[in-house]
Amino acid sequence: MPVIQVHMKAGCGRQKRRELVRRITDAMVEVCGSVEDRVHVIIDEVPEDSWGRGGVLLSEIQSTPVKESG
Amino acid sequence: MPVIQVHMKAGCGRQKRRELVRRITDAMVEVCGSVEDRVHVIIDEVPEDSWGRGGVLLSEIQSTPVKESG
Amino acid sequence: MPVIQVHMKAGCGRQKRRELVRRITDAMVEVCGSVEDRVHVIIDEVPEDSWGRGGVLLSEIQSTPVKESG
Amino acid sequence: MPVIQVHMKAGCGRQKRRELVRRITDAMVEVCGSVEDRVHVIIDEVPEDSWGRGGVLLSEIQSTPVKESG
Amino acid sequence: MPVIQVHMKAGCGRQKRRELVRRITDAMVEVCGSVEDRVHVIIDEVPEDSWGRGGVLLSEIQSTPVKESG
Amino acid sequence: MPVIQVHMKAGCGRQKRRELVRRITDAMVEVCGSVEDRVHVIIDEVPEDSWGRGGVLLSEIQSTPVKESG
Repeated sequence: MPVIQVHMKAGCGRQKRRELVRRITDAMVEVCGSVEDRVHVIIDEVPEDSWGRGGVLLSEIQSTPVKESG
Repeated sequence: MPVIQVHMKAGCGRQKRRELVRRITDAMVEVCGSVEDRVHVIIDEVPEDSWGRGGVLLSEIQSTPVKESG
Repeated sequence: MPVIQVHMKAGCGRQKRRELVRRITDAMVEVCGSVEDRVHVIIDEVPEDSWGRGGVLLSEIQSTPVKESG
Repeated sequence: MPVIQVHMKAGCGRQKRRELVRRITDAMVEVCGSVEDRVHVIIDEVPEDSWGRGGVLLSEIQSTPVKESG
Repeated sequence: MPVIQVHMKAGCGRQKRRELVRRITDAMVEVCGSVEDRVHVIIDEVPEDSWGRGGVLLSEIQSTPVKESG
Repeated sequence: MPVIQVHMKAGCGRQKRRELVRRITDAMVEVCGSVEDRVHVIIDEVPEDSWGRGGVLLSEIQSTPVKESG
């Protein structure tokens, strides 16, 4: 019965989504005794431009120039 | 006041979304006495490539070849 | 497959929840062709003390004294 | 630790998303004592074609012809 | 960065929640390369009286009498 | 129109919830031009026993024994 919603950064790719669904489903079945066929995993890939952490958009955290020492 | 979020497979089309919004809103008003103008229905159409059921992506469940007896 | 989350004010009662689940499920089946047994409706009843509208908690909107003219 | 999900009409633009993330994060830090770096704000911009209010899609509320007298 | 919300039937117990959090977090780290300390798992245990499947509340599905043959 | 869902640790208290609702609503109105009366803020206070970060329940992160020298 469980429904699992995953919010993660976009750009994961089908192979990883497939593996993630497999592992989260197995966790629900093995830990909680869920019926496998009733486990739903919904993956929401969020653009870095729509996710803020620490008050800053992820897209802008990553564009911070990194100083290199000489 | 109620907020209803619908997660469903993508590809529904505007005509069906319109009808869905109408019927869910009516249910809230008639069953729970909600004020119609305050009922919000948010439809999130999820790609079959981002939804897993039973440990498998929907996009891959459906590509299972069906054997036909002969 | 669809998953519908309903956020509504607390205090609805089982009879109304039962009816709501019935009607929302029927809407999904009849409008979108969903498989009935795969329609999930999750009802989250939110205390009026945890829901704000127009910048004010619902619990405090309703306690506003109403002035009556003499 | 808090996670804030904002569901709003699409079309906001990066500058406004940036400012929104800043202000919501500040509110969490100043009001609730959250650790800034742990505040997550996820913005979900919903197409007007997928949001119903009062039983009608937003995209169709706005296309209502306005009668002009005169 | 990822945020995972688990909606499941109430009554899981702390030991299982602890194990679930561990396994889902590991999946995010190993499959998607997430930074462990930034993986959030929020478990929402839903009463059977507030979850409908197939148009019926879970609390009422389970009270269905099972006929036994003699 | 916007709907903002806040997931935070339980134990905030009404005074802080009231202030949070006020500030988030103001941010939506001032930054995005939302109509104040249509801004909804839903606060979900999550028990520390149901929230994992870094693979560990918050309730158990905090119960980590602190070694004292001396």
